Order: sequence, then C-alpha cells, then structure tokens
Amino acid sequence: MQRTVFYLSGSTGITAEKLGQSLLAQFSNLELDHITLPFIDTVEKAEDTVSMINIVGQKDTARPIIFDTLIDQEIKDTLKTADAFFIDVFGTYLKPLERELASNSLQQPGMSHKISEEDKYHDRIEAMNFALTNDDGARTQQYDNADIILTGVSRCGKTPICLYLALQFGIRAANYPLTVDDIDTGNLPRILIKHRHKLFGLTTDPERLSKVRNERQPNSRYAALRQCRFEVNEVEQLMDRHRIPYLNTSNHSIEEISSKVVTTSGLKKRC
Amino acid sequence: MQRTVFYLSGSTGITAEKLGQSLLAQFSNLELDHITLPFIDTVEKAEDTVSMINIVGQKDTARPIIFDTLIDQEIKDTLKTADAFFIDVFGTYLKPLERELASNSLQQPGMSHKISEEDKYHDRIEAMNFALTNDDGARTQQYDNADIILTGVSRCGKTPICLYLALQFGIRAANYPLTVDDIDTGNLPRILIKHRHKLFGLTTDPERLSKVRNERQPNSRYAALRQCRFEVNEVEQLMDRHRIPYLNTSNHSIEEISSKVVTTSGLKKRC
Repeated sequence: MQRTVFYLSGSTGITAEKLGQSLLAQFSNLELDHITLPFIDTVEKAEDTVSMINIVGQKDTARPIIFDTLIDQEIKDTLKTADAFFIDVFGTYLKPLERELASNSLQQPGMSHKISEEDKYHDRIEAMNFALTNDDGARTQQYDNADIILTGVSRCGKTPICLYLALQFGIRAANYPLTVDDIDTGNLPRILIKHRHKLFGLTTDPERLSKVRNERQPNSRYAALRQCRFEVNEVEQLMDRHRIPYLNTSNHSIEEISSKVVTTSGLKKRC
Repeated sequence: MQRTVFYLSGSTGITAEKLGQSLLAQFSNLELDHITLPFIDTVEKAEDTVSMINIVGQKDTARPIIFDTLIDQEIKDTLKTADAFFIDVFGTYLKPLERELASNSLQQPGMSHKISEEDKYHDRIEAMNFALTNDDGARTQQYDNADIILTGVSRCGKTPICLYLALQFGIRAANYPLTVDDIDTGNLPRILIKHRHKLFGLTTDPERLSKVRNERQPNSRYAALRQCRFEVNEVEQLMDRHRIPYLNTSNHSIEEISSKVVTTSGLKKRC
C-alpha cells in the first residue's frame, strides 16, 4: 500500500499539517508519504499542484488524501479537479461560523500567521532573547522580569522548553540547573528562594538522564546511572520540601511538557 | 459584545488552537477572549469544564464558541451538555477518513504530540543544540553537518528562524552574520563560499533594522538609518552576485519565513 497525503495552503500550511497529523495519528499501521505545498496563491500554482497530485496518485496504489486550508475560491475550484480525497477545512467550517457570528468572513489567505499585531511578534523575539540570555543559570539579574524559572538537574530538558515557550507563546522563561553543590547545601540557592513563586521543576527518569549525559560526557561520573539516581532523588526531595510544582519530562514531547507547564503554573500566553 | 472561545483537548490543545485561530482570523472586528483547556482526560474534568463554560457564557453577551479535539466518547458527551456552539473536529472528519482509509480509528487521545518515535524527539533536541552552538557565526567547524546556513546583516532575524526550524522540523540551521568587514572585502567570507550551496539569505527593510538595532545600541553608528541602508544594500548585492536565494523578513511572521525558507531551499523536514 503506497499512499500520499498533501497539505495544501495559500499560506504556511501549518494549520493543515497540524490538523491532518492529528487525525491521521488516530490510524495505526498506515504507511503514508507526506508532502506540504504552502503559498499556493495563484491559479497557475494551483494548476501545477493538480498535475503533481495526479502524477503522484497514479504511481501510488490509492488516491491521495488532501488537507487544505485554501480560501480563494478560484484556486480552490482548480485544486478540486485533482483526483483525490479532500478534507476542505475552511469549506466545512466557515459557513457555520458565519451564521453563529452573524458576520461575513474575509476570505483572505494567510491571516493567521501574519504579523497583524507587531507587538506580538516583538513579544516572541524578546522572549527568545530572554531565554537565550538567561539559559542554564548564566544570569540571574533579570529574574524580576521572568514569567517563569525552570529548574532541575543538569540535562533534564529545560532549554528546549524555555525556547518553545518563548517562540510559541511569548513567555519569558529562564532556567537554572541544580548542581551537586546545591544538593550538598541541602537547600535551594538563595536566588531561587527569592523567586520561589516563579519556580517550576522539571525532572526525568535516571536511566534516561544517564543516556543523555553519556552522549555528552561518555563514561564520566556525571553520566553514571548511580550519580543520576542520586541527583534526581535529592532534587525531587528538595522540590517537595519547598513545594515547587514539578513534572517528569520522560516520555513526553516538547509540546506536551510546555502545555503542562503553562496550565499547571497558570501562565498567560502573550500570543 | 463580549464572547469567549474555548479550545478543549484531551491532550495539548495545540491542534484545536491552530484550527480555531485560523478560522477566526477570517473574521474582522471580533473581540473575543480565548481560553485553552488541555488535558481533559476524565469525566470529572469534563464536568468541571462544563461548569466553567456555562458560568463564562452567562457573563458574556453571546454563547461561547468551542473548538474541540476530544476523542473519548464519554468525555465528549459530557462536554456537549455545555450551552455553547461546538466545532467538533474529530467528530466531523474521523468517520469520512475511516471510510476512505478502510480502517477503524484508534480513538485514543494525544497521539499526535506523543513521543511515539523517540528518534524524532532526539532529532529536534539535537537540531536545537546545533542551532545554539552555531549561532551568530560562533563556530564554523560543524558546517558540514548543517542542513542550511542562514546569513545576512546583523539583527535581521536569523536566530529565531534557526531555532524555529530546529524545534518544529528538526532541521539543523547555523547562522552567520555578514559584518562591515565582510562588506569591505567585497566578497563572501571563505567559510561561506565553501558551503555556498547551503546558504540562504535573510534581509530586512533598513528602517526596521535601524529600529531593532536602536533598541540594542541606542544612537550608535551601528543603528543609524544611513548605516543600515548601506549594509542592507551592499549585502543584497553580494547575495545577488553569488546567486544566494534570499528573503525580506519585514512584515512576515516567524512561521511564514520558516515555511518559505523550507520550501524555497527544498529542505526536508525531519519531523
């Protein structure tokens, strides 16, 4: 069985991809090729797209599946001539929404990822700069401006979450690693105690931590399973004592962890 | 007019948010509040959600609009008792997809953002580390392993694009700023010439560049409009001479620029 999924859009194609991938993830044992064709903004490009879809479909053993978020009616009509199974997102939902909102839709492509609001773009870039500047405990003077401070043992996955929170939601996230020295004192570093209400802990399974650390520093004491077990255990106890909420990141995607951090801590998304 | 949109999900809520925001962006002059409620994975949480929706709806001047990507039938049935307008994504599309694929769906929540494939998660983290290590021309020894090298004048927006490409698509993107010294030589730096086929240029409007630089170094020569005009002009000519594809990032979102970079350069997404 050879079959292809196309994500077609007049803009980035991100909405079509997210929707299609969510729906198709509900089917097991599918072997599908995935092709995203964004920025289909002229009838000529739509005609080329139809040719491509039909060629691919003839090579495959079943007709292509298409998720499209096209708006322009002439372009849509052209695409619909392709021999494929269509999931037409705007076609399905715009009319019911127009009735519910008692308002006509704009019928303009690419509205959702435009910088319609300059401030939101600015927020995301500022948040990214904040995450980079305040990564790995590098600086602590800006913690007054942080929305959240992630903490946990070294290499438990704090940096990708900080950057994801910044780029997706404009949230300013710093991160501070808890080291063996911190564990030895038996207390949180003073700078973290000062900002205790902004703290959120990430933890991980010692086996996974050991694997990740071994890629960085093979066969080191730092990467030894025994050491990882010790650190994780001590840091979790420390967080329990200080009533810092925390989350085990093992077996969770960046999206899942970020969503849980936002929800649990009641953070407000800026975009 | 006071109205609230809810994004409800058994998992992260990202698909519901993307879809809802795309659709609602087609309506102008709406003043809507947006609330995402992810990880609704028990009937009890669904009941709490219904109470919240109804309380909000009674305060508003029109009933709430709900985008949901729930799968579990009992949870869905509970949520449907809320007094609201529902866009039920899986309810709309799963049955037609089952017929087209001649296969039953799994009916399990959170399949799309699970780390079902450990390798893909690893790719994203590795790509992020690559982007951080190879940011701003800091290192050039790893360019053999780069999927793409972004270049352009200082502060034209290379870093957020590199990080977005890494976190969203697992693409390893380095970036290298072209400085006044490079411009003075009238040629590309040798390291870039060596990797010319991986280069992609970003450019920007001088006015915008001057504004961004002024936030960093107010009233400097570096931020002066005259200087920005000179640099942008010279670098664009340099890229033209070396036939490096480039894109003006002004007035485009991070998503739009990233999608265009991927499409134009024919990069393959790793996830």
